[in-house]
Amino acid sequence: MRGLLLCNACGQEFNIDSTFPRCTSCGEPLEVLLTLAKPTVNSKAPTLLERYRDFLPFDRDHAWISLGEGGTPLIKSRGAAAGLGIGNLYFKNEAMNPTWSFKDRGTVAGIGHALDLGFERIGTVSTGNMAASVAAHGAHAGLETFILVGSDLPEEKIVPIAVYGTRLILVEGDYGDLYFRSLEIGPEMGIHFINSDVPFRIEGSKTIAYEICEQLGYKAPDLLVVPVSSGGNLRGIIKGFEEFFEVGLIDRLPRFVAVQAAGCAPIAKAFEKDQEKVERISEPDTFAKAIANPFPPSGNQVLRKLRQHGGMALTVSDAEIESAQELMARDGIFGQPAAAAPLAAAQKLASRGKISDGDCVVCLVSGAGIKSTSHLSGKKYDITRVEIENLGKAFH
Amino acid sequence: MRGLLLCNACGQEFNIDSTFPRCTSCGEPLEVLLTLAKPTVNSKAPTLLERYRDFLPFDRDHAWISLGEGGTPLIKSRGAAAGLGIGNLYFKNEAMNPTWSFKDRGTVAGIGHALDLGFERIGTVSTGNMAASVAAHGAHAGLETFILVGSDLPEEKIVPIAVYGTRLILVEGDYGDLYFRSLEIGPEMGIHFINSDVPFRIEGSKTIAYEICEQLGYKAPDLLVVPVSSGGNLRGIIKGFEEFFEVGLIDRLPRFVAVQAAGCAPIAKAFEKDQEKVERISEPDTFAKAIANPFPPSGNQVLRKLRQHGGMALTVSDAEIESAQELMARDGIFGQPAAAAPLAAAQKLASRGKISDGDCVVCLVSGAGIKSTSHLSGKKYDITRVEIENLGKAFH
Repeated sequence: MRGLLLCNACGQEFNIDSTFPRCTSCGEPLEVLLTLAKPTVNSKAPTLLERYRDFLPFDRDHAWISLGEGGTPLIKSRGAAAGLGIGNLYFKNEAMNPTWSFKDRGTVAGIGHALDLGFERIGTVSTGNMAASVAAHGAHAGLETFILVGSDLPEEKIVPIAVYGTRLILVEGDYGDLYFRSLEIGPEMGIHFINSDVPFRIEGSKTIAYEICEQLGYKAPDLLVVPVSSGGNLRGIIKGFEEFFEVGLIDRLPRFVAVQAAGCAPIAKAFEKDQEKVERISEPDTFAKAIANPFPPSGNQVLRKLRQHGGMALTVSDAEIESAQELMARDGIFGQPAAAAPLAAAQKLASRGKISDGDCVVCLVSGAGIKSTSHLSGKKYDITRVEIENLGKAFH
Repeated sequence: MRGLLLCNACGQEFNIDSTFPRCTSCGEPLEVLLTLAKPTVNSKAPTLLERYRDFLPFDRDHAWISLGEGGTPLIKSRGAAAGLGIGNLYFKNEAMNPTWSFKDRGTVAGIGHALDLGFERIGTVSTGNMAASVAAHGAHAGLETFILVGSDLPEEKIVPIAVYGTRLILVEGDYGDLYFRSLEIGPEMGIHFINSDVPFRIEGSKTIAYEICEQLGYKAPDLLVVPVSSGGNLRGIIKGFEEFFEVGLIDRLPRFVAVQAAGCAPIAKAFEKDQEKVERISEPDTFAKAIANPFPPSGNQVLRKLRQHGGMALTVSDAEIESAQELMARDGIFGQPAAAAPLAAAQKLASRGKISDGDCVVCLVSGAGIKSTSHLSGKKYDITRVEIENLGKAFH
């Protein structure tokens, strides 16, 4: 592996083969620091790891662990854009990944790291997208895979993880402590935990930024709107734009917009109050479970980066999210609730006059709506009942 | 539009702008016949319609209707392949399409046809993958979209269709008649029905074959195993290989294997009995609903093509499908039951010595397992319960 691990908060450096994801001095998460000497995009490569080889810290070829992450389309909105008066509104549809969320990009990079370090056991702490992603990739790579979840995991969430043949561990106790317990127990048990904030997951996430730039003809959008939970994905996306800027592939950064659900918005609250550190939310209350982390491990780092680049953070209500989920589906894209939060935010910003008609706005669709549809049952849809003899009457 | 419509059964020709999908003489489905004069793959194009422009009958640019269909990965199996003794087993993962099934390819081509013909209303008859696909693409293209389903459609299947803002019509009466009623009512109501067997849906499906050839380095696999319901998708895939062979991009065709569920196998039955025509199955009985068409409209055409090219048809039981679904997930790919039927068939062929170790076998994963997980609930998974204080004990 190339490069080193850097704490962006206090500047301390660590060896690239360190397995601990956080700074042992100040406690903040680490990032990979690479010297990018004239890197080029290998645009004919079939996998993300090969395509961006020059931008990633791997020496060895890990393409065989790929399930086809990334390469997701950037879809220009027609209906929603027209309604909002945003001329150039795009959806970056991460619901088309191997396990139907953005998590797959970071997982494949995290597994590459685990393999370079010689691990044969990996794990993660998650109940949703990340759990399925690590389970699937761990299975494909032939690694023993442990998924730690709270003991109250509903039955419907078990199958999409367990089906991959993973070792699913239901833990009784404070779920918030599990993340920290996993960091202790990993080294003891020879398990590499690929949690939301590990430096190599960030390396995977940054490819979202690369792709958006390429899809816009090596330009950054004016606004990039991202749903934020642990903060790891936005960290990665910002890092990707920074790196493309650094090597001269784009000439400016976008304005970064972090969106959280009003019922669980530790980062947006700290941003508004000009605080340096996020505070734990005692009782998260949102149906957008994928962005309901009450104490985001990358929260402080996201705050620093948003301020450094003149970004912003805002909240949207569950009602606004649900309405945006339906609006986005009417554009042909069915995202999970968290994935619709960016459109809700764009809607809010447009109504406040913060987006002008000529702006290029990209909303990150983080995961698939098909993963959970029960909250949409019983909605008022356009449904007609008719007997087959009278079928013609249904079309008037 | 270029080309014409040809009946492969009796040879009659029709104008390319005909909306009726079947031969008015013999009743068999039509296919697009194009003169392919030195076509090239535009490998830098972001959409399927642009990438294969030379191979498709469109004059106009329809890229704006794309939601990012196709470009799905070909994943080399590791676990399943090793267990079966197949050295080169691949999964073509169509679960990574915009609505998570192969249907999106045919839908986008069908909508292109509808637009060329000046339609502003489209429709389809389906309860599953095709319904969601047409609903999503119709919404994105800004077309009024009608989805005809049986009146007994379960609630859980309504949301994934209706969420796109489609006009959902629940029809009381014989569902088997609905397909034929839609062909009558379409012209009356100015609705272009993009059903499973329309010639332009076949044009979309054929791109699966193109991509497989390209991903294997412009080679055809030895065996191509495809789950078959209406027969349209396999017709398209065969046509794709035929065309790549015709223009010299590959030097032979694969052996085509059609797989059906034992509880609904009109094509496999007719194939075994050396019959020219499929017979209607009176009571389809399989949990693989996506391949449960009791009277496939493209069945006879599939029989002709299988025989012409030395292919075969076989059945797999629901138990074999379910077991293959789990086996495939242990390779990191969670397909819906129908999507696992090819692996079950490969397993059967390998156990009968019909596949040799050096063969290159491609299984088509037709749609996503996440669409319906309830039948997997209560399975024996590797689940451990532990208190957080004793977490270490869970890893031994």
